[in-house]
Amino acid sequence: MMKTAIITVGKEVLTGKTVNTNLTTIAAKLHEIGIDVNRSFVIDDQKSEYTKILDFIEEDLIFFTGGLGPTIDDITRETVLEYFGVETYLDEDVLHNIKSYFDRMNISMKDTNNKQALMPKKGILLQNDLGTAPGLYFKVNGKRIILLPGPPIELRPMLDTVIRNLKEELGTQLFSRGFKLVGTGESYMENKLNGFYQLYPNVNVAPYAGLGEIKYIFTSKSETDLNACMNDFYSRFHQYIYGTTEETLEGVVVQLLKEQSKTISFAESCTGGMVASTIVNVSGSSAVFKESFVTYANEAKIKNLNVTPSVLEEFGAVSNECAYEMVKGLQYKTKADVCLSITGIAGPTGGTEEKPVGLVYFGLYNDGEIKTYRRVFNGNRTMIRTRAMIYGLNAVRIELLKHK
Amino acid sequence: MMKTAIITVGKEVLTGKTVNTNLTTIAAKLHEIGIDVNRSFVIDDQKSEYTKILDFIEEDLIFFTGGLGPTIDDITRETVLEYFGVETYLDEDVLHNIKSYFDRMNISMKDTNNKQALMPKKGILLQNDLGTAPGLYFKVNGKRIILLPGPPIELRPMLDTVIRNLKEELGTQLFSRGFKLVGTGESYMENKLNGFYQLYPNVNVAPYAGLGEIKYIFTSKSETDLNACMNDFYSRFHQYIYGTTEETLEGVVVQLLKEQSKTISFAESCTGGMVASTIVNVSGSSAVFKESFVTYANEAKIKNLNVTPSVLEEFGAVSNECAYEMVKGLQYKTKADVCLSITGIAGPTGGTEEKPVGLVYFGLYNDGEIKTYRRVFNGNRTMIRTRAMIYGLNAVRIELLKHK
Repeated sequence: MMKTAIITVGKEVLTGKTVNTNLTTIAAKLHEIGIDVNRSFVIDDQKSEYTKILDFIEEDLIFFTGGLGPTIDDITRETVLEYFGVETYLDEDVLHNIKSYFDRMNISMKDTNNKQALMPKKGILLQNDLGTAPGLYFKVNGKRIILLPGPPIELRPMLDTVIRNLKEELGTQLFSRGFKLVGTGESYMENKLNGFYQLYPNVNVAPYAGLGEIKYIFTSKSETDLNACMNDFYSRFHQYIYGTTEETLEGVVVQLLKEQSKTISFAESCTGGMVASTIVNVSGSSAVFKESFVTYANEAKIKNLNVTPSVLEEFGAVSNECAYEMVKGLQYKTKADVCLSITGIAGPTGGTEEKPVGLVYFGLYNDGEIKTYRRVFNGNRTMIRTRAMIYGLNAVRIELLKHK
Repeated sequence: MMKTAIITVGKEVLTGKTVNTNLTTIAAKLHEIGIDVNRSFVIDDQKSEYTKILDFIEEDLIFFTGGLGPTIDDITRETVLEYFGVETYLDEDVLHNIKSYFDRMNISMKDTNNKQALMPKKGILLQNDLGTAPGLYFKVNGKRIILLPGPPIELRPMLDTVIRNLKEELGTQLFSRGFKLVGTGESYMENKLNGFYQLYPNVNVAPYAGLGEIKYIFTSKSETDLNACMNDFYSRFHQYIYGTTEETLEGVVVQLLKEQSKTISFAESCTGGMVASTIVNVSGSSAVFKESFVTYANEAKIKNLNVTPSVLEEFGAVSNECAYEMVKGLQYKTKADVCLSITGIAGPTGGTEEKPVGLVYFGLYNDGEIKTYRRVFNGNRTMIRTRAMIYGLNAVRIELLKHK
């Protein structure tokens, strides 16, 4: 069994300026192909720190990130190559690539950039299309050493190449796919999955919990086992599954609307435009989304959505009745095919015993019918608003699926 | 000089399920009081892994996070106490606290929770008001050892206690404050600050760059030096400084509106409700924010904001003229004291040579006057939209300051 270490080089992480997302990115990708990370280290860019860690670690798959750039502080490449005593040369192609990169940027190249072309005689060069620092993958003394740049945007495509190489070399054709779920919680799922894992001993199933969403990644050496496991999972939890790991909830909603040639509009109180903004983040959403109203004050609900003043007086703005009138008025104003209203108490103040912080009402119009929903969400102001947005978008998704 | 190591325990980080934000939180807080982190480690929750790392490290200030909970996998407390051979006892007060926590949650307490009351005879207990796992701070063999829980929400208040203790014990009264800046970039600032740092050798100045914002943290042993440095910094960059590190841009805008007894409204196209939603995230924003319009389609701009169809035909929706008419119509419709319109091309498609992706127009109404602005932002769709939101809010802030 291969043991893996990830070493991040950089003061930015050690001073709390930067979150070490490279560790998360690499670890998750390795996990998907069945390789577990044993330990991870963050070190300063001093030569002695490299030596101490390399003397210490016993792992045989070693990732470095950071310190591949052109400045005097960037010493990962030469230090690691020297430590392992591998033969090197200055690669002309790499030099040429770096030079043309600088030409494109209209900057004159400095001599210090030459060191970025230092290559082991036996090894794989990892091309960097987004910067000047190429990565390296070489083997020495039974160990696999991988050097990747620090900027996440440069690291990711190079990591994909490494993962492909590792999959090939380790002879383990691994299959990995995933589902995204909404409307359920991790502890509920783990409880339900109690006996499930044992049914598929050859499939690794890993949950990744987010705010209001969970991602399940399935990995196996056997595509048949993977399919069987995922089909079983789907049949048990299809009501929560909104898509694959490549999809977003808002993307799925926009896609369903496109398929049904429907438009959508929102009347938002406590979410204050968050739902509309999330839909607009889908490129091409203009086909289904034309306009939206943020009606935060009572007067705005009356003026823009024709909510009856007596409803606000009798039941309050955070009520089933108000959510109903908001969505009815929204549909009347916009003539959108699908309409969603949201009104609630995001806190931290404004809650009562009867109407606590986190209480949210939803109104949903589709095909001439209005439905309303009531939920109480946990968390701080941002979390309650985000959870309300996800709940509302998911209600739209479920409604659209019924009419498919 | 004290050397510091931060050791994170947990499979979630090593499998890429969780980003190691605890490292960032602790490192940033230590940096503010002048303590630099030497190295950081992430290990699995195996006893042998603790031993290997503790044998290896040479640091004398050692933080552990994670593994303080009640499950069988949580072994940080007993393993570290045993490693250093310190005398321990079961603390009755802690046991009582854990019991009453479970009572409040209506869960029956298990025996495994008893181990959470294991305490060194000499040491500081770090009370955990948000969970059952108390933290520890003890000294042994000239080293300072700090054990903190994994959940960030539980860790933070306990970390504040540790930081206060460290400041006191190290006899270095450190002063630390900061500014938040908007409308400038890190490389521009670093260039401008070239000679500045040398003027204040006793003040540590550290930039933390975010999306569209930069935070500068100033730390010094001398309050006089700190004030001199910050006053100088303020006089050079006051046009970019919107507040202290405790403030948010939207919070400052809401505060200024409250002070001037003004209301605000938005007409959003490419930001699609993001500005309204960000304002609503300020608790108490209802005093200044009543309603807002998302007019994504041309028809919505015409219908809801009275934009002239010929303006859209002649100049297009992404134009100075359209931004002007949007904000004019918005003010007419809402009678808000301050109105902001935003229309632009968020991409990735829809750009032309004349009107590239990232081009955004703004209209700003205040005191009977309309101003318009044109900017081109970099990045992907989300980044362009976020930068447009920040630019718009900052334009409102600057406008309100003029009338103060």
